Amino acid sequence: MKKEILQSFIQKVWNEGDVNAIAGYIADTYTVMHDPGDPWDGMALDVAGFQHRVSSSRAPVPDQVFEIQELYENENSVCITWLWSGTHLGEIAGIPPSGKTLRMSGATVYYFQNDRITGHWQITDRLGVFQQLQRNRNPET
Amino acid sequence: MKKEILQSFIQKVWNEGDVNAIAGYIADTYTVMHDPGDPWDGMALDVAGFQHRVSSSRAPVPDQVFEIQELYENENSVCITWLWSGTHLGEIAGIPPSGKTLRMSGATVYYFQNDRITGHWQITDRLGVFQQLQRNRNPET
Repeated sequence: MKKEILQSFIQKVWNEGDVNAIAGYIADTYTVMHDPGDPWDGMALDVAGFQHRVSSSRAPVPDQVFEIQELYENENSVCITWLWSGTHLGEIAGIPPSGKTLRMSGATVYYFQNDRITGHWQITDRLGVFQQLQRNRNPET
Repeated sequence: MKKEILQSFIQKVWNEGDVNAIAGYIADTYTVMHDPGDPWDGMALDVAGFQHRVSSSRAPVPDQVFEIQELYENENSVCITWLWSGTHLGEIAGIPPSGKTLRMSGATVYYFQNDRITGHWQITDRLGVFQQLQRNRNPET
């Protein structure tokens, strides 16, 4: 059940950008427990805060897709490994859009209570993304 | 069973550096399926190759410890999330030792066949490590 909820959440909210669907998935408070490099690392978000996070994150790569590789389930959590890709159409970390495809991989543990997602613990290969951004900015290098 | 094998493997091989124990854990061929930034990414290793990988990786941080946060098990794999720390006592990526503690987090899927580990899929926060290395080299920044 938790796996199916999570797959639906990733698809609707993160892949399709449907911020109105968020209230149906997350608990009243969603905690970003561990997410090195993420602007929301350590924060506790309500639904409006989470909507802002999704909108802001998707803005520079509006066609982004998380492709789940594997799902693992424990009593109160689901862990997924994933590949991410999207077209760089807006400024990221001060770097202007290149129109190129960006790729990233990561792993995320999502915590649940009463079928609601209460937060996550995440690792992403953010160095790989910065290297792509630099390479696209300076194609001769 | 796989979880216990993996915990023992992490402790003996990666935390204690016992390269003679490796042959008791891994299959004849160990494949580094996905490990962005790792020098062995994409390689298929035999026992000697794996011993070299462990020795080389541990040399600059000989007291390194992987502290497992959570374990998840599927039919043929175990996924762990972990925190890593160690003292920077040897050159890393051309940066001389600082004597400072380095910290990193990551997530790894280990694949099994007949209770032997056949390979892994891994994400680490390598950007976080490079930022620490740079900060330790230029403490005024």
